Amino acid sequence: MRFGLLGAGRIGRIHGLNVAARGDARLVAVADASNEAASSLAQATGAKVAAADAIIGDAGIDAILICTPTDTHADLIEAAVSAGKAVFCEKPVDLDSDRIRRCLATVATSGKPLMIGFNRRFDPNFAALEKRLRSGEAGEIEIVSVISRDPGPPPVDYVKRSGGLFRDMMIHDFDMARFLLAEEPVEVFALGSALVDKAIGEAGDVDTAAVVMKTASGRIAQISNSRRATYGYDQRIEVHGSKGMLRAGNIHETTVEIATGQGFRADPVQNFFLERYAAAYRAELAAFIDACSGKAAPSPTGLDGLRAQMLADAATESARTGRPVAIRSA
Amino acid sequence: MRFGLLGAGRIGRIHGLNVAARGDARLVAVADASNEAASSLAQATGAKVAAADAIIGDAGIDAILICTPTDTHADLIEAAVSAGKAVFCEKPVDLDSDRIRRCLATVATSGKPLMIGFNRRFDPNFAALEKRLRSGEAGEIEIVSVISRDPGPPPVDYVKRSGGLFRDMMIHDFDMARFLLAEEPVEVFALGSALVDKAIGEAGDVDTAAVVMKTASGRIAQISNSRRATYGYDQRIEVHGSKGMLRAGNIHETTVEIATGQGFRADPVQNFFLERYAAAYRAELAAFIDACSGKAAPSPTGLDGLRAQMLADAATESARTGRPVAIRSA
Amino acid sequence: MRFGLLGAGRIGRIHGLNVAARGDARLVAVADASNEAASSLAQATGAKVAAADAIIGDAGIDAILICTPTDTHADLIEAAVSAGKAVFCEKPVDLDSDRIRRCLATVATSGKPLMIGFNRRFDPNFAALEKRLRSGEAGEIEIVSVISRDPGPPPVDYVKRSGGLFRDMMIHDFDMARFLLAEEPVEVFALGSALVDKAIGEAGDVDTAAVVMKTASGRIAQISNSRRATYGYDQRIEVHGSKGMLRAGNIHETTVEIATGQGFRADPVQNFFLERYAAAYRAELAAFIDACSGKAAPSPTGLDGLRAQMLADAATESARTGRPVAIRSA
Amino acid sequence: MRFGLLGAGRIGRIHGLNVAARGDARLVAVADASNEAASSLAQATGAKVAAADAIIGDAGIDAILICTPTDTHADLIEAAVSAGKAVFCEKPVDLDSDRIRRCLATVATSGKPLMIGFNRRFDPNFAALEKRLRSGEAGEIEIVSVISRDPGPPPVDYVKRSGGLFRDMMIHDFDMARFLLAEEPVEVFALGSALVDKAIGEAGDVDTAAVVMKTASGRIAQISNSRRATYGYDQRIEVHGSKGMLRAGNIHETTVEIATGQGFRADPVQNFFLERYAAAYRAELAAFIDACSGKAAPSPTGLDGLRAQMLADAATESARTGRPVAIRSA
Repeated sequence: MRFGLLGAGRIGRIHGLNVAARGDARLVAVADASNEAASSLAQATGAKVAAADAIIGDAGIDAILICTPTDTHADLIEAAVSAGKAVFCEKPVDLDSDRIRRCLATVATSGKPLMIGFNRRFDPNFAALEKRLRSGEAGEIEIVSVISRDPGPPPVDYVKRSGGLFRDMMIHDFDMARFLLAEEPVEVFALGSALVDKAIGEAGDVDTAAVVMKTASGRIAQISNSRRATYGYDQRIEVHGSKGMLRAGNIHETTVEIATGQGFRADPVQNFFLERYAAAYRAELAAFIDACSGKAAPSPTGLDGLRAQMLADAATESARTGRPVAIRSA
Repeated sequence: MRFGLLGAGRIGRIHGLNVAARGDARLVAVADASNEAASSLAQATGAKVAAADAIIGDAGIDAILICTPTDTHADLIEAAVSAGKAVFCEKPVDLDSDRIRRCLATVATSGKPLMIGFNRRFDPNFAALEKRLRSGEAGEIEIVSVISRDPGPPPVDYVKRSGGLFRDMMIHDFDMARFLLAEEPVEVFALGSALVDKAIGEAGDVDTAAVVMKTASGRIAQISNSRRATYGYDQRIEVHGSKGMLRAGNIHETTVEIATGQGFRADPVQNFFLERYAAAYRAELAAFIDACSGKAAPSPTGLDGLRAQMLADAATESARTGRPVAIRSA
Repeated sequence: MRFGLLGAGRIGRIHGLNVAARGDARLVAVADASNEAASSLAQATGAKVAAADAIIGDAGIDAILICTPTDTHADLIEAAVSAGKAVFCEKPVDLDSDRIRRCLATVATSGKPLMIGFNRRFDPNFAALEKRLRSGEAGEIEIVSVISRDPGPPPVDYVKRSGGLFRDMMIHDFDMARFLLAEEPVEVFALGSALVDKAIGEAGDVDTAAVVMKTASGRIAQISNSRRATYGYDQRIEVHGSKGMLRAGNIHETTVEIATGQGFRADPVQNFFLERYAAAYRAELAAFIDACSGKAAPSPTGLDGLRAQMLADAATESARTGRPVAIRSA
Repeated sequence: MRFGLLGAGRIGRIHGLNVAARGDARLVAVADASNEAASSLAQATGAKVAAADAIIGDAGIDAILICTPTDTHADLIEAAVSAGKAVFCEKPVDLDSDRIRRCLATVATSGKPLMIGFNRRFDPNFAALEKRLRSGEAGEIEIVSVISRDPGPPPVDYVKRSGGLFRDMMIHDFDMARFLLAEEPVEVFALGSALVDKAIGEAGDVDTAAVVMKTASGRIAQISNSRRATYGYDQRIEVHGSKGMLRAGNIHETTVEIATGQGFRADPVQNFFLERYAAAYRAELAAFIDACSGKAAPSPTGLDGLRAQMLADAATESARTGRPVAIRSA
């Protein structure tokens, strides 16, 4: 399979290198607004540098990886599927749910596979937990808890363009909650505060937040977010069910432990998302390749992207109004 | 110090035996509607059996432990403090907040110490965590999480008289959240479902619930409750702060672990609340004796009892109406 | 049952208080070279102070607890069983194996129960491990590992009178190894160094030591000792078998953990043997009472005491000569 | 740097693929007695297939990786360094210490770098522990413990040619003990049994073994080996020092844990040495490349290989004779 990559930033570079490292795929072309970023990745992978529309129009390319800024995603997806390419797009499809709906309609018409980059589903730990949950090991699902805390807050400039914590950060947790609940939330209530960085509050956003959600059958999900965690990138899930509790935890930097009069001290947990989810990005690419070759349906789908965005929108509204928000059908 | 005990049920018996085991205190008299319960405890401790009003009126008794059914608490507290006794009363003071307010006014007039039995504050693990939190070890408090899951649901008959999960079970977690937050919640939102036992739902209560709360300065508390936990009595707290995260966990039945091809298996956690909190009950009694002898102010106070009840009332209302509920001043 | 206690030092006091706390036993009399120690314990338990031979000769006493210095144990055991008493004696019976043999012959003649105070067998964790080992959960036993490290070294004066590390400290681990191996070691090799306190080395003893042993069927035991552990009283066992590995670990002071940029820090492990083995001492006494009343055979027996002493003697000789030492039959 | 690889079996393949995955190195040629193994690796890496002596004689090759059977190592090392190549050789250099000495003399004369493949030194966990040990975090070293248990025994045919457990398996632990002790053992005592597979015993070898060693200053090392561990590939180290204890543990397959009435069950530990030490093999290659380019001295050296072999020889003799064996200077 021959890939074109749009966007050679931090996450695009990861995907590009992962394509290059596979025996069954080739990175053919890279586009980026920064010629330096595109060239550097092209050199490391044997790809050529090209313009985005040239890549989309290149008949020798089978699949497009979209890792550009969010506001370009929907247009690029539409262009790429219309040109007959399979598409992998980083989350979110768009910050506007209606724009996502129109984009997905175009994708549906094209008949081409679209997969959305909710990487955490592919973390080997979370994926194993979900598989065991589906096998019934914990019985009926009752409470899904997701804890997600970043090591430190992003710059305020980024925050202003991000759509806010619920759309930018918690959207991963909404997807994870849906992934685990196996049932759509019908109600969302959100609380948020700016405790980490006052400037985030002044920009109208929050950096510390909690959400509760409920499904039609009464399953409950709890999400806890902070833009700061001194001890690393905190990524935990726990599912309480009728037969037991399944959880998956953080990965410490090493297994080394020191015991002294001050106690037993283990390492902080892995701090950087590209390290923490390195295996997830590889597994995600493998799943996309399987989807392109028809071995499996693409998943997470564009609809998953829309559903997570609707929850993020609802949480944003709930935090603003102080009221719970009902979720309509997609 | 000479103690009278009102109520020789499961929890009264614990307190009575703990008094008897101390060198500086004596259990003098025991009252219970069941003569058998009173006699059995009296025999084990060298106390005499007496009627409740006789015990309250006995000039040779310094302090009263109230472990009777909830609907008798407020009357007995008033009678005992009016008779000049120090009083320890199991939670809650009453299911009605206004009744609690009137009772506390009587206590205030009497000038006698009243301490409420929120035993978890005295658990050595939770107490150590709170002390370290106060010392600033985790920095500014941002998110308090309390997980509390009972091994199994109570009989539906009990549930009907209990005031509901938020007042009967989660009240402990409301107290723990207040204890750790060090600031009053001003808003409560609650979700609940009957997932464990349909009969609990038919009785108008829930058995699975989640609450989020916020304080005036923006601190967030999350509580997770279930009436079922196959793996034992699940009691965990975690406080996320600006400098770090402090948490205290469950106690496994033993430290034994088996490793086989199926993995590494540790014991379930302690299953029974009287075992899990045995040390807490002893420390609680010691604190009450210190309060009686003027070495320390009584804590948790009657006001703590009222505050927790107000949160439980608010959560009950929130779950019923689907709206967040604001907390007025006490 | 009515008990007499000989020796009201640190360990005697524990046993005396444990007797007094039971409903089915009474501490009647206490003897100690220090009148202050005897009086203090007598006052706390309602016992009287008496001379050792008066206690042994008291027809109203059923059982004797011997907690005096080691060099008096054998004589007191012989006197007590000859006077028709059941006897519990702290380890070791004597530092000389032949003296132990003569003492056990007298015990055998008397027909009275003798139980030796190897308290660790009664630790709930180690006892549970041993029970599961016997049930076959780990399959055939292949390697038994015992790690035992004291928080700090004893005074050199004590070391000089102690019989040396192998007889004074490691004897507990020899007993634990025998308890778990369920087969007698036939060969012992020991290495030791004075790394903690040079004065211990100058006194002819070691403070850091390792032993390997082998049974006739080829099972292997490893023991690791140090007179110093900055992180608490380190007490661990691990049994590797054909079906799996069973281990039991330390008990931390609390379950509290702090996570910061320095990592995840748990408490030190319990530091003091009387705290670490508090539950074991209570269970040990219960087992002795069962043995006195004929509900169970006394265990550990005098022969267990002899066997452990023989291993300690062999290790002492091995460390001195640099040669492995074969163990003869008892 | 241009590499030639001798031996394209399991471990050779790993090294070959790791060379090919680097940007600063190229695998140029591969030799193997099996043309299929050589061709398969050559195809995967872009190398050519060639005879071992052609590779050694190829002026365009800078460094040789020796992954052939043990009995060819010393000859190939000598040939390669004499041809001016830097050499990385899998352990052991030879099963005969004198042959190793002659080989190392040739290497010394050549002036070319030789590095021996004790991969565990490069495990990120063990490497971090060693670094912290050297920084003094645990104080003076007192006891080094190494536990190493394979998931299952090798075929008896392999055992017969292997030199025995101490030379084939425990040699890694001897190297790890030396690495951590930072002082040479002067005495070795070994015990072994055939408990896992009787056929191993009939072949004159053991499958379960324990070793104790002592250095001149009195530091103690303990090693525990089994050819069977039902729960995975058990690889643990622990260093007890004057200031504290440093340990590094196993890596579980995932971080997922299930809690039920049967307890809390985590995954088995990683089972396969190529997976467990994947990061170590990459770091080992990076260290060899640094040694080739003069950025660092080669380590572990040929002398490290000799020293570990001498300890393995001594342990083999000790287990055979039942006597401790003194270690002479190298």
